Amino acid sequence: MKKEFVKKELIKKSENFPRWYTDVILKSELADYAPVKGCQVLRPYGFAIWENIQRILDGMIKKAGVKNVYFPIFVPERFLKKEKEHIKGFLPELAIVTIGGGKKLEEKIALRPTSETIMYETFAKWIKSWRDLPVLINQWCNVVRWEMRTCLFLRTTEFLWQEGHTVHETHEESLKEATRALDSYVKLYQDFFAIDGFFGKKSESEKFPGAKDTFAYEMLMSDGKALQGCTSHDLGQNFAKVFNIKFQGRDGKEKIPWQTSWGLSTRSIGALIMVHGDDNGLIIPPKLAPIQVIVIPIFQRESADEKLVKKANEIKKILKDFNTEIDLRKEYSVGRKFNEWELKGVPLRIEVGQKELKGNKLTLVRRDNNQKRQISFSSLETEVKKDLDLIQKSLFERSRKYLKENTREVLDYKEFKDIMSKKRGFLKAFWCENSKCEAKIKKETKATIRCLPFNLSQKGGKCIYCGKKAERQWIFAQAY
Amino acid sequence: MKKEFVKKELIKKSENFPRWYTDVILKSELADYAPVKGCQVLRPYGFAIWENIQRILDGMIKKAGVKNVYFPIFVPERFLKKEKEHIKGFLPELAIVTIGGGKKLEEKIALRPTSETIMYETFAKWIKSWRDLPVLINQWCNVVRWEMRTCLFLRTTEFLWQEGHTVHETHEESLKEATRALDSYVKLYQDFFAIDGFFGKKSESEKFPGAKDTFAYEMLMSDGKALQGCTSHDLGQNFAKVFNIKFQGRDGKEKIPWQTSWGLSTRSIGALIMVHGDDNGLIIPPKLAPIQVIVIPIFQRESADEKLVKKANEIKKILKDFNTEIDLRKEYSVGRKFNEWELKGVPLRIEVGQKELKGNKLTLVRRDNNQKRQISFSSLETEVKKDLDLIQKSLFERSRKYLKENTREVLDYKEFKDIMSKKRGFLKAFWCENSKCEAKIKKETKATIRCLPFNLSQKGGKCIYCGKKAERQWIFAQAY
Repeated sequence: MKKEFVKKELIKKSENFPRWYTDVILKSELADYAPVKGCQVLRPYGFAIWENIQRILDGMIKKAGVKNVYFPIFVPERFLKKEKEHIKGFLPELAIVTIGGGKKLEEKIALRPTSETIMYETFAKWIKSWRDLPVLINQWCNVVRWEMRTCLFLRTTEFLWQEGHTVHETHEESLKEATRALDSYVKLYQDFFAIDGFFGKKSESEKFPGAKDTFAYEMLMSDGKALQGCTSHDLGQNFAKVFNIKFQGRDGKEKIPWQTSWGLSTRSIGALIMVHGDDNGLIIPPKLAPIQVIVIPIFQRESADEKLVKKANEIKKILKDFNTEIDLRKEYSVGRKFNEWELKGVPLRIEVGQKELKGNKLTLVRRDNNQKRQISFSSLETEVKKDLDLIQKSLFERSRKYLKENTREVLDYKEFKDIMSKKRGFLKAFWCENSKCEAKIKKETKATIRCLPFNLSQKGGKCIYCGKKAERQWIFAQAY
Repeated sequence: MKKEFVKKELIKKSENFPRWYTDVILKSELADYAPVKGCQVLRPYGFAIWENIQRILDGMIKKAGVKNVYFPIFVPERFLKKEKEHIKGFLPELAIVTIGGGKKLEEKIALRPTSETIMYETFAKWIKSWRDLPVLINQWCNVVRWEMRTCLFLRTTEFLWQEGHTVHETHEESLKEATRALDSYVKLYQDFFAIDGFFGKKSESEKFPGAKDTFAYEMLMSDGKALQGCTSHDLGQNFAKVFNIKFQGRDGKEKIPWQTSWGLSTRSIGALIMVHGDDNGLIIPPKLAPIQVIVIPIFQRESADEKLVKKANEIKKILKDFNTEIDLRKEYSVGRKFNEWELKGVPLRIEVGQKELKGNKLTLVRRDNNQKRQISFSSLETEVKKDLDLIQKSLFERSRKYLKENTREVLDYKEFKDIMSKKRGFLKAFWCENSKCEAKIKKETKATIRCLPFNLSQKGGKCIYCGKKAERQWIFAQAY
């Protein structure tokens, strides 16, 4: 028993953030290192969070009229090479198959780092007329980007994601779709992940290789570093041109269509862990929690156990609309159980002991603030719903507050450098939009441009680096 | 317009079955050849069938207490080599990654043809005590088996499947789990795919490489050839021994656990196409149909169209519990629309024309038997439900009848050879269980042993090949 307790001991989040992050993932059994370099195993508890994300996002995707498909993982190298910026961006990360069925292949085949090229070769075959547009498709799949330094959820050689790809008659339409996709992600992060952030346009140097524009949602982790939560690309006509996608327009003339692509990956779970977790482990927002309510009967004397088990089952039955589980294990102490479910970040705990049985009451304990209160058994469903809603809201409020407190407007480069070397966080600063200034800032402070936020009113100023005229403020941060 | 009609023309199923099969898949837009050798693209209509299969089967899997996970696609070659039979079975089909991140890899990495080896290396780390058992996990993923001759859905280099993997304390338990998985598949095929078949144990030579026993569901296609619809393996302790999975038993002693694995793939959609389709195209069983009801307003005069569209929308609203779509396209004739939705195998068509409007009636046309009838508008929901149930049942009855008529008991090898060279189908025959007889039968007739069926009463006889004593009748067929 002693050993079990030790196993659950976590380093403090404030003490050693990177170690806390890895520890909490391994100990709560979200994921594990795989026996292959750079890879991870998503364990049942971690995968169940991904299934919740999938269910919610897939619903949004389908509601927008986008349909799911599946394209091969294999991309012949020559496809990737067609778009010059694209291959330049992905070449260093490719995994290449050179042997198939015991024979050396005539042409090297890459594993998809993303599917633009393999899909668009086929789109050229499918699209002939304006009647074939828009094409609105999405796939949930694995992608491969060779990584040297692994970080669970954030950076693994193989990861899971969804990638939407659409083709339109006009740029107006495609831009609307790229924006719609970004809006879905914003909604997903704010309403379900309970994580506030900035959303906007990336700089030229940070955009997707081959895109006209890239939009993203940028969140702030507890260590002051930024995490990009998704991307949505306005691909313009770049890929259509190199893959020879054409269509006969409504006026009978041959035209080149406009494309978008957009994706969100298992990386998002990394943000959830970092933003909400505390010294006791994970805190999973109720709307994404595989287990929303854990019922723990406080076993004491053998004789009374039966009544507690019966009560626990009654509770589970009443809470059928929530993900409710009962911990009936006899081999572990109540204290150990509390620790374990706290570690796993279950939002709400219900305790049923002799005291509760007698008074026909229940004890509810919130994971987010540790508040404990008694409720009458008859109000169970209402009170649980109320608490879960409150937890969801208060996690978002906490995140919003953290974002606000750690987003600083700076007009002076010395102050910029000073903050980046200490507190970090997001910095709002004027930038002349010259990539040389951007590169120098990155070299000197490790801060990159995260986005030009859509939700920020703008008026002119001076570039934080060179002092020349700058029209807009951009968001800077050191990033994962 | 003429061209559109030609595009829909199908070769007759009875005339050229293989060509019909490929044609119907391409024309109904279930799937397409990918621009990579041996691979296919699952298009929205085909993928929607797979999503229905996933939803149903995933429900069964979760109900059995099995949880979803995700393991890497990468399997170091040395893992595969640990179980000798296993590597012998899969070596000729492997795709091998030799370059990663621009560098030649020190160790070759295979893409999973199946995940026993990569998973079980990790299980050894997770499983310490009887308290850690059973392990019940499943994953939905892509697998790669290098194929020279491609056949859409049936044989592609990459395909999608689910693979369940479980670990148990006793053989009694693991065998029960392997049987439960098989039972789920039988239910899925019979109640949802509406395809009857035999289920039972494979022969030694046909079982999964490394398994103790393999169980399967075997169906008969319209050309008299068999298709294996899934497998469930009793892995015994073979893999546990080579991967060093051990646990401390309830008695404190070290033990070796018992394992199962079981899978079903997108191949199953191939069976659905072949079994139910006819000269006019697909027939999709209502329970798996992405579109269950297609509403076609019979447009005639511009002036009256508005009323028809309004009525069609009313119908869709009433049929909200079914997958209902309306074909409002003005650029296509009614005849072309009928052809298209027949080709796509939509189980039920609703026609609304002027006649229907006047009489407050609707015309229903069943895809399975082409029967047309009028119903009153007020009974719409009831009648649609009734028809969809009837179609589901009658497709299964048709399949059951076909199976019965094409399963023949033979006692004489000459007759066996004769049937196999002409009508084919399933043959019930005594076999002495000597693999030499099995190999000779295969060589001479192309027929393999499909299974020892669980649903067949057995009494002794003589081996169909050598005439020696044989205890049981086995099912033979030429197989895909």
